[in-house]
Amino acid sequence: MKTIDPSLIAAQNDKLARHVHHDYEHLGEQLARRNIDIETVRARVAAFGVAIPSWGVGTGGTRFARFPGQGEPRHVFDKLQDCAVIQQLGRATPTVSLHIPWDRCSDWSELRQAAEAGGLAFDAMNSNTFSDQPGQPLSYKFGSLTHVDAAVREQAVAHNLECIAIGRKLGSKALTVWIGDGSNFPGQQHFRRAFDRYLDSTRQIYAGLPGDWRMFLEHKICEPAFYATVIQDWGSSFLAASALGPQAQCLVDLGHHAPNVNIELIVARLIAAGKLAGFHFNDSKYGDDDLDAGSVSPYRLFLVFNELIAAEHEQATGFDPAYMLDQSHNVTDPIESLISSAAQVQRTCAQALLVDRAALDAAQHANDALTATGLLQKAFQTDVTPLLQRVRLDAGGAIDPIATYRASGYRQRVAEERPAVKGGSGGIV
Amino acid sequence: MKTIDPSLIAAQNDKLARHVHHDYEHLGEQLARRNIDIETVRARVAAFGVAIPSWGVGTGGTRFARFPGQGEPRHVFDKLQDCAVIQQLGRATPTVSLHIPWDRCSDWSELRQAAEAGGLAFDAMNSNTFSDQPGQPLSYKFGSLTHVDAAVREQAVAHNLECIAIGRKLGSKALTVWIGDGSNFPGQQHFRRAFDRYLDSTRQIYAGLPGDWRMFLEHKICEPAFYATVIQDWGSSFLAASALGPQAQCLVDLGHHAPNVNIELIVARLIAAGKLAGFHFNDSKYGDDDLDAGSVSPYRLFLVFNELIAAEHEQATGFDPAYMLDQSHNVTDPIESLISSAAQVQRTCAQALLVDRAALDAAQHANDALTATGLLQKAFQTDVTPLLQRVRLDAGGAIDPIATYRASGYRQRVAEERPAVKGGSGGIV
Amino acid sequence: MKTIDPSLIAAQNDKLARHVHHDYEHLGEQLARRNIDIETVRARVAAFGVAIPSWGVGTGGTRFARFPGQGEPRHVFDKLQDCAVIQQLGRATPTVSLHIPWDRCSDWSELRQAAEAGGLAFDAMNSNTFSDQPGQPLSYKFGSLTHVDAAVREQAVAHNLECIAIGRKLGSKALTVWIGDGSNFPGQQHFRRAFDRYLDSTRQIYAGLPGDWRMFLEHKICEPAFYATVIQDWGSSFLAASALGPQAQCLVDLGHHAPNVNIELIVARLIAAGKLAGFHFNDSKYGDDDLDAGSVSPYRLFLVFNELIAAEHEQATGFDPAYMLDQSHNVTDPIESLISSAAQVQRTCAQALLVDRAALDAAQHANDALTATGLLQKAFQTDVTPLLQRVRLDAGGAIDPIATYRASGYRQRVAEERPAVKGGSGGIV
Amino acid sequence: MKTIDPSLIAAQNDKLARHVHHDYEHLGEQLARRNIDIETVRARVAAFGVAIPSWGVGTGGTRFARFPGQGEPRHVFDKLQDCAVIQQLGRATPTVSLHIPWDRCSDWSELRQAAEAGGLAFDAMNSNTFSDQPGQPLSYKFGSLTHVDAAVREQAVAHNLECIAIGRKLGSKALTVWIGDGSNFPGQQHFRRAFDRYLDSTRQIYAGLPGDWRMFLEHKICEPAFYATVIQDWGSSFLAASALGPQAQCLVDLGHHAPNVNIELIVARLIAAGKLAGFHFNDSKYGDDDLDAGSVSPYRLFLVFNELIAAEHEQATGFDPAYMLDQSHNVTDPIESLISSAAQVQRTCAQALLVDRAALDAAQHANDALTATGLLQKAFQTDVTPLLQRVRLDAGGAIDPIATYRASGYRQRVAEERPAVKGGSGGIV
Repeated sequence: MKTIDPSLIAAQNDKLARHVHHDYEHLGEQLARRNIDIETVRARVAAFGVAIPSWGVGTGGTRFARFPGQGEPRHVFDKLQDCAVIQQLGRATPTVSLHIPWDRCSDWSELRQAAEAGGLAFDAMNSNTFSDQPGQPLSYKFGSLTHVDAAVREQAVAHNLECIAIGRKLGSKALTVWIGDGSNFPGQQHFRRAFDRYLDSTRQIYAGLPGDWRMFLEHKICEPAFYATVIQDWGSSFLAASALGPQAQCLVDLGHHAPNVNIELIVARLIAAGKLAGFHFNDSKYGDDDLDAGSVSPYRLFLVFNELIAAEHEQATGFDPAYMLDQSHNVTDPIESLISSAAQVQRTCAQALLVDRAALDAAQHANDALTATGLLQKAFQTDVTPLLQRVRLDAGGAIDPIATYRASGYRQRVAEERPAVKGGSGGIV
Repeated sequence: MKTIDPSLIAAQNDKLARHVHHDYEHLGEQLARRNIDIETVRARVAAFGVAIPSWGVGTGGTRFARFPGQGEPRHVFDKLQDCAVIQQLGRATPTVSLHIPWDRCSDWSELRQAAEAGGLAFDAMNSNTFSDQPGQPLSYKFGSLTHVDAAVREQAVAHNLECIAIGRKLGSKALTVWIGDGSNFPGQQHFRRAFDRYLDSTRQIYAGLPGDWRMFLEHKICEPAFYATVIQDWGSSFLAASALGPQAQCLVDLGHHAPNVNIELIVARLIAAGKLAGFHFNDSKYGDDDLDAGSVSPYRLFLVFNELIAAEHEQATGFDPAYMLDQSHNVTDPIESLISSAAQVQRTCAQALLVDRAALDAAQHANDALTATGLLQKAFQTDVTPLLQRVRLDAGGAIDPIATYRASGYRQRVAEERPAVKGGSGGIV
Repeated sequence: MKTIDPSLIAAQNDKLARHVHHDYEHLGEQLARRNIDIETVRARVAAFGVAIPSWGVGTGGTRFARFPGQGEPRHVFDKLQDCAVIQQLGRATPTVSLHIPWDRCSDWSELRQAAEAGGLAFDAMNSNTFSDQPGQPLSYKFGSLTHVDAAVREQAVAHNLECIAIGRKLGSKALTVWIGDGSNFPGQQHFRRAFDRYLDSTRQIYAGLPGDWRMFLEHKICEPAFYATVIQDWGSSFLAASALGPQAQCLVDLGHHAPNVNIELIVARLIAAGKLAGFHFNDSKYGDDDLDAGSVSPYRLFLVFNELIAAEHEQATGFDPAYMLDQSHNVTDPIESLISSAAQVQRTCAQALLVDRAALDAAQHANDALTATGLLQKAFQTDVTPLLQRVRLDAGGAIDPIATYRASGYRQRVAEERPAVKGGSGGIV
Repeated sequence: MKTIDPSLIAAQNDKLARHVHHDYEHLGEQLARRNIDIETVRARVAAFGVAIPSWGVGTGGTRFARFPGQGEPRHVFDKLQDCAVIQQLGRATPTVSLHIPWDRCSDWSELRQAAEAGGLAFDAMNSNTFSDQPGQPLSYKFGSLTHVDAAVREQAVAHNLECIAIGRKLGSKALTVWIGDGSNFPGQQHFRRAFDRYLDSTRQIYAGLPGDWRMFLEHKICEPAFYATVIQDWGSSFLAASALGPQAQCLVDLGHHAPNVNIELIVARLIAAGKLAGFHFNDSKYGDDDLDAGSVSPYRLFLVFNELIAAEHEQATGFDPAYMLDQSHNVTDPIESLISSAAQVQRTCAQALLVDRAALDAAQHANDALTATGLLQKAFQTDVTPLLQRVRLDAGGAIDPIATYRASGYRQRVAEERPAVKGGSGGIV
């Protein structure tokens, strides 16, 4: 697998290393004054990773248009190659999450070997029953796992079971189920019956789940259904996950909630209930905008991580969240967006590790709101850039991964190998 | 109890009765063509009632100001008198819901007799731990049932138990618990611990609940806490109600959700889970605006009732919702707003009874969204005014209750008896 | 142009006409009691029309998928045929609004004749610079009328001028300009400079506008840009329209606003400023959902029409709004959705005509909010179905246009003539 | 005026000064590598100030309750004393903004002297026509500047003119006009006529404005009116300010917009139009929550400042914004919240000064969204704490103002002098 020449990375790093070490040292001093050992933090940050969705390395789009870039990946092997570059430079994305049917291939062991060659493993499998594929016998136009017709539901269940089967071959340990089922008109769907059908279908999938797998249920307030969705919020997701059993948990995509909703509070509720599956990270200003993680509301992301680190700190029962980026890269090079988004998530994790939890407990018990919130702000305001740079440097990655990527000419090279894709959908309005 | 002179009502009705009978007959004809028996619908509508909150008969306000009207009720007996007038004219509000401590009185049996004299019974009791009362030992500034200090929680629990004790004397069968607890700053409150304290406190209240009572947990996304609330949505409410036991259920106030949230879908989920306590009806455009029910989004109210009538039709297990108005009458005479809001809720109930459920089932099974939604629209577009007028007329109420109320001079009369209340809060900004 | 056999329409009408006349008579009686002459209302409703967008007759989709139906129109002539059927049955949609480049054809006079044969005229022209077309020299990936590169802006200006040229051949009198320009990242675009470029580009288009044309500027809060759009709200639209001149006005699409925004208030502001271009009607629950008009919030649509009828009543200066449906029909037959949506808009117009404006004025002057709002409710609650049926019947349309359409077998017939379109975009996530 | 003993401040500073100088030096080094001169930034930050509203030093509340703290200020002299302490310690709040009638006093020159003694000047005057005062002849229940009754409007105009007269005595140079006028019911208010009355009333106020004053019009989407407000958004505010003349401008309160609205974009539009009056800073998650500035969305505040610094950098015509905090301190000591909020605004200003504007221009011209947004992030991620500490230290303030304030015992001291205020409104629901 052709990635970036390590000597280029080394050369780029050489130009910056002196400053990184100097800044790191000063940061260590500052943290020491706050009774924080920078080395401990560094070790934890180095161990942190977030998965890349295979579809993320292609240029995204909207219902209005898609504007492909150069060198779009043609198939799952191209996607793996791009993911390997992301991980090589950024060192925060050790796994890839596949989407079936788009990532189907003829030889799964070849794929597994390719991943290993690229320093990658496989994260959760993703099924797709929200669009029709060529040759598919029955349509999902009016639903999949909740369709009124049992035959459609069976087809959708079988597809999910196939995803599990593929995942077993690849070493995956989880299945993420997101459906587009819902309705566009009041009255179109019987709410309670649709939910019952969802439970019935997911029970069949759950029954096919290996004992060491988990099943991630993903809720979403709207889109593609615009009046109601079947799993519209964490409440419905929780009802379903509870009905299914301990291996079923609730996945939080940061862009899938109503305006103003306090997501970190939902995270806390799911942790307390032992039902937090993990995250699809992205950012949003209006809806499921799928913007780069932390690009619009970095403090919101921090407040989510604050809950995660607190849960870890307090050893919350059954706490083991999975992390994945899930963004739509419409105007940037997807590789660049994924590298920088992973770094942003990693940065946020590092900042949350700096919260003085004992002092926070004390402030909360004293109803000293100003001190409590100030402790979070202090952690968030800390510039942990040198720490992230050291983590990458130590792991063989790039101090400045975007600059190194641009210097490498990777995109231009693959553009030559991969023929241009013609324009996007343009015209669905 | 001095209400409206029945001869005035009769005289007012006489002017309108002929048209009511004529319009009712024509509506009956139209419904008969749709295979609906108007008499059956009328009987069901006549049996429908919605409670009045005792605080609703006073003029409401905002944090900026309160502009009291004439003849504001001074105590619970005045409030009962106003409620009796509302019921006398509108015949859709047979019960009153009290709020302690505001409705405390020295002789509960006298109060019960006064209610009976006014044709009223007592609905759910409401506790108040969101504001401090003169002489109260401990403050709720930083929470009540979830306060970090056990002594404050005990005080709040004791208050709720007192509400139950009062309610037993009055024939109430439910306690509604809404708290203002939450936080205004990230970090101020430990989310999981606050929720645990809530469970601990409500368990103590639940333990004091008579066997034939229910406990209604009311969620709210924000206000008075503006960063996070402890019971922020139906998901948290459901977690708590499940932890408490079968007598605990989830109350839906229509104004307590995030923007865009599909409330009728939440209602369906709670029905399916056997956890729908009932409703606080009002309308809203921005937040918890507490506008008159159905005044801004009448179709949303209809879609909620569509779920309720469907659940009744399908004999959903444990379905027995309680209905109450919960509005803030800032610019209208509260008596007028309550009469017309109750009529609006009653109208919506009547419309939902007109939905052709067999045809709706068929359309849903055929994925015929246009027909399905058209069936709801047809019911909603039916002008059931003559039916509501007949229901009032038959029960001794007023065909046009607002006009009759205005003709009665009731407000001017009580204004003479009840001294003017001085201005509102003015100045909390 | 092969539409529906008039004898089928007549036969269908015959079955219902007796009840329509009877119900119409009773409605007339009821309105007479309210001092409203039903014939006057009928004449005004009969004169009301709303345009169909040519793209509306195709099945819509989302960024996740498109599920085409049978007999999808292949080109503008097929679209005109479908529009002719809609108008033949519903009699509320006398015009069609074209979208270039999708509706380009080789012979515009042939198209004009086809329209006339179908009883149709041409409404506003719509340009498209939000997606790239095959063979297009420069891409709109990073903007069109506001692109940083002058050459791209010139291309987009030229396209708009071409739309005017085409429209002149077809008898159109307006150009609607909606752009997808904006940004997905903070910092991506210089807000003030982008707006200046917008003004510069639109001035060039405006300069090419015939003297009897208008230019409609359409604002939208987000999508396809998800951090910021150039013409994000009516304020920016108004700034631009004012800068351009009297022929430029602001178009309101009901789905293009932030959550909770009071759209009827914006309409009032634009009327007062003489800048209301008109409407793109649809409904929405979450964002730009493009649901069928009035299907989710019929009272909101009524409140908009209340402003329009009031402006007409008060002879507001320069008041001459254009009406168009703009919906995405994802799960219904587009012809059915357009017929019923047009009828819904027509119904709402009829209801707004029933408001007692003198009484409303009086109530507003007396600060009698309950009476004022009750006057609006009374108009909205009136079931004007018989009036709409009469209007259709008198004009040669169908009393029950959906039933007649289904009985006609039109969709099956065109499905044979028009080859199946392959699936949708499926895969832009 | 008794503030904090300077020797206490000096003693507290002594403990921290060494680290401040060390950290400042390292920050200077880092910035130098980015070609930024820390001294230049420091000078600009030192010159930055934000006004304190006189009402901000009292404990705020909600419509549900107010929980006063100890030592609440009793009158405007107490408020000035608290403001002097805030400025003494934080050195970022050199001015105070008064609210009439609450800040009325018998001797304005005495007040002016008191302010000077406390190192304070007077910022914009604020009128209040959203609540009734004892003895006020006419009520604002149904509006003030837009009331249907001309006599009420005259009273409201006269009050605003009085505010100007008072402000002239105090050296103020601006009048801020925010009204609560609007409606709670569809139909209650005639939208266009209410706006006309607003223009008529404000024209009379504008006519009384001294030539060197400005008039700030403040818009708000809702509350206390919950269906519609007269100046609901920046569009309406802009229409009014344009109608009035060049001294009228549009004030932006960060909490007064619909959910999801891009406020920094509005700021850019107002700058371009020469109509940006300035800001009321606070933060919000749900509505007009009036939380501490930057406490929930610090990056949003940064993006606003990014527009401001860009406008300054590009010498935008007529750019001269006024800055004020406008928060409701319900659960913190108001003095602490105001000190830390002013520091947060100051911090954000400093961060925005670090943006590499030349590089940003280049990235924007190259459509390099990732680089552009990265430049903003880099500035925001910089920890400017040492710079703020130096600015305070140099000006005689406290390095850690909250700790110093707590050490001073100021609150306890004034609590002894100022008798306890009884509980809040409790009961407006």
